[in-house]
Amino acid sequence: MDLKLLSRSLLIFFLVGLAAAVRGFGQTGHSRTFDVAEDSALIRRLADTILTDGKTYGNLRMLTKIVGARLSGSAGFYKGEQWGQRALEDALAGKVWLQECMVPHWVRGGKDSAMWSVGAVNGVRSGKLEVLALGNSVGTGPAGIQAPVLLIHDFDELERRKNEVKGRIVFYNYKFNPLFVETFRAYGDAVRYRVMGPSQAAKYGALAVLVRSMSSSVDNNPHTGALIYNDSFPKIPAAAVGLQDADRLAQVADERHPGGGSVRVYLRTNAQMLPDTLAHNVIGELRGSEFPDEYITVGGHLDSWDPAEGAQDDGAGCVQSIEVLRALKAIGYKPRHTIRVVLFANEENGGRGGRAYAETAKAKGEKHILGLESDNGGFTPRAFTLSLSEEKLAAIRPWLQLLTPYGVYEFVKGGGGSDVSPLGPQLGAVVGELRPDSQRYFDYHHSRGDVLENVNKRELELGAVNMAALIYLVDKYGL
Amino acid sequence: MDLKLLSRSLLIFFLVGLAAAVRGFGQTGHSRTFDVAEDSALIRRLADTILTDGKTYGNLRMLTKIVGARLSGSAGFYKGEQWGQRALEDALAGKVWLQECMVPHWVRGGKDSAMWSVGAVNGVRSGKLEVLALGNSVGTGPAGIQAPVLLIHDFDELERRKNEVKGRIVFYNYKFNPLFVETFRAYGDAVRYRVMGPSQAAKYGALAVLVRSMSSSVDNNPHTGALIYNDSFPKIPAAAVGLQDADRLAQVADERHPGGGSVRVYLRTNAQMLPDTLAHNVIGELRGSEFPDEYITVGGHLDSWDPAEGAQDDGAGCVQSIEVLRALKAIGYKPRHTIRVVLFANEENGGRGGRAYAETAKAKGEKHILGLESDNGGFTPRAFTLSLSEEKLAAIRPWLQLLTPYGVYEFVKGGGGSDVSPLGPQLGAVVGELRPDSQRYFDYHHSRGDVLENVNKRELELGAVNMAALIYLVDKYGL
Repeated sequence: MDLKLLSRSLLIFFLVGLAAAVRGFGQTGHSRTFDVAEDSALIRRLADTILTDGKTYGNLRMLTKIVGARLSGSAGFYKGEQWGQRALEDALAGKVWLQECMVPHWVRGGKDSAMWSVGAVNGVRSGKLEVLALGNSVGTGPAGIQAPVLLIHDFDELERRKNEVKGRIVFYNYKFNPLFVETFRAYGDAVRYRVMGPSQAAKYGALAVLVRSMSSSVDNNPHTGALIYNDSFPKIPAAAVGLQDADRLAQVADERHPGGGSVRVYLRTNAQMLPDTLAHNVIGELRGSEFPDEYITVGGHLDSWDPAEGAQDDGAGCVQSIEVLRALKAIGYKPRHTIRVVLFANEENGGRGGRAYAETAKAKGEKHILGLESDNGGFTPRAFTLSLSEEKLAAIRPWLQLLTPYGVYEFVKGGGGSDVSPLGPQLGAVVGELRPDSQRYFDYHHSRGDVLENVNKRELELGAVNMAALIYLVDKYGL
Repeated sequence: MDLKLLSRSLLIFFLVGLAAAVRGFGQTGHSRTFDVAEDSALIRRLADTILTDGKTYGNLRMLTKIVGARLSGSAGFYKGEQWGQRALEDALAGKVWLQECMVPHWVRGGKDSAMWSVGAVNGVRSGKLEVLALGNSVGTGPAGIQAPVLLIHDFDELERRKNEVKGRIVFYNYKFNPLFVETFRAYGDAVRYRVMGPSQAAKYGALAVLVRSMSSSVDNNPHTGALIYNDSFPKIPAAAVGLQDADRLAQVADERHPGGGSVRVYLRTNAQMLPDTLAHNVIGELRGSEFPDEYITVGGHLDSWDPAEGAQDDGAGCVQSIEVLRALKAIGYKPRHTIRVVLFANEENGGRGGRAYAETAKAKGEKHILGLESDNGGFTPRAFTLSLSEEKLAAIRPWLQLLTPYGVYEFVKGGGGSDVSPLGPQLGAVVGELRPDSQRYFDYHHSRGDVLENVNKRELELGAVNMAALIYLVDKYGL
């Protein structure tokens, strides 16, 4: 958030807050008078059940340790579907069902490997590289690819040096920018090298691509994630390199150093894209008492990358969403609107689950009020983004006094995550997402570090508390 | 924070913020006009150096991996003193010195061990208990102590059952209350069983005490920490039990179950308290340009418990405090007041370092404006406590717009940590501390989990950014 924006939002906050303090608080929509005492008591009850006899962490343990990795189309994903149905039934959803959806079916096909070597006067120096093939990438074939490496720092440099690309393996060493306090901004800045880098290099004749992992970690775990091939160019293999090895490779391949221009890389990946296959969004709902045909959706995505357990990405969002429903039910709250929990089928390498859900909703003519997502990890909560105007955000900021004791202190203008986003343009719903603290997310994201042990039970639970509280407030007051 | 307090503080926030927005902002003391643009630019420069070429994490790596555990009086502590001097010199403190201070010298003396057993009709059941002797406790002697255990839930129950205590080992199984969102409140609630429980049990004739670890973790690591003996009663051995083993022991020792009343515990600890010994506060300072005889102190404590590396408690606070000085110097800032970094000698089992610092300052007639401490872990920053009236806090809340982009969104009325607290009553200084997110702190606190690997580099750095920014603002505007 830049400072100017913050200043302005604080000013609006003062003005609206002052007005609210003086005249009480009324919402548009299904208008009710803001009742801080009643709401804080109810939210305390939600927090009590989530923090004491909640299922968030236990559900995540099952999902990570019994089900495990859940890439779309993999056996783990289907085990995940079964787990999701059962967890929603245990949470006493009134109705649980599977919604069909065709998903990409990419398989890694075995362990990826890579090494660098350079012939020197006094022999050959070489080193292993920790790599993971990028999702959706083609493999090198069993023989692998060996070629001279070209160290490239950004797309501008690629353009300048396009004549040197042919026949080489391009290594994008674009770094995560530590100056973005919100790490998702650093990710947004760097991820284009993973998503578009392979085809950009293929355009100029590269044989394969290595990309520095999109991470701010201090370890050497490679971080995978999807690429998108541009069909105009050959599909070439591509893999992410762990940060320590990326630093090492950048050092040896630096052409200002002796031998830097003659470093070769060997890469072997075994990936292939199989035909699309059938999977499902897993959906549970609590029927609304007053407006059963108006929907509030809360969800996360069930699929995960294969190197680990998909604990933070996005087992956390799944179990938090289920917990919202369980907690509302546990305290005996009767929602006015129908509350749906959706475990989306395919966020990571296709976004098909989110689109299928929105398309089905649109085809049925459903009215959706809010789509809320948790896909930024189960870290300590700080904010929600919501696709509301600054004026409407200001109007609901008095709600923050109810959330701040549990961690959320700001509503930020912004979109939903990728799974609920289609509910915006398709159905006119407000979309949003939980914004937990972002400092640790990219330590684990898409790497073998994304395991239960790197989720803190209480941080995870507090995310669920804030989500349940927001959904209660939206259900009661509208948006 | 309770809701009523929050409501009130939000209202004050609105009113003062509104006023500030309309009329600009003036401080008492060395009055200057609040200049958001200048301050945000300067704070951005502090953040840039801390987040890119900062020494926070590198210093912590040295302190944890080369120096290691640093209990007062141990060899590790003196290595820590040397490290601290060197780190302050490397940070270009204008002057670095050691301030003498006598500290307690408690030694663990070897590995602690314990087990439970119960004679049953079909043989003996038994199990090992993960334990750590409490700091300052006496040992059992080499033979250990074996006695029937008495499961006690709280001091009320101890009073009711005082006649059953004699000749037994009292096991306090008071649980960390998960309903306190701020975990330090759960700690404050539970820690009296560790601090006072042993003497309370000794009063009624107990032979030893076990206490459930003060933790919200999901693992079985025992968490040590200081006890305080009441000299009116015998000093008996005491140890903390890991949470999983505490649950197990509570289960088998429950008298409602068969054999529950006849569970025996064997405890062996080897601790002893040696005579007080000489140690030092390590101090560095940047001399003020306008008010060299007015001091702003920032610090953490150098000593740590022995089971691990004292990474979060309180290596983090030490390296953050050093980084404040380094960063101010690195951007060429010339402080108006003298800024002192203090690495306190003995927080954990005596508080002697903090008292010695305040007493020396008082004896010299020094004027202290602010004592700021970081001793709540190097987690993602959220707030500062300050010992100011609500009115004065409201007056500086406009500063929050400068801190919130880096994590701190609130000033809370409260005290400093235990090392800077004596500067309040002794010298009339404002005292305060960084309040990072508290969810993970008691997972690691005083246990073998308090290692570098459980510190996130960026969270640690952001704490230093907010501390440097606050100290800059206090230096510029006064308090």
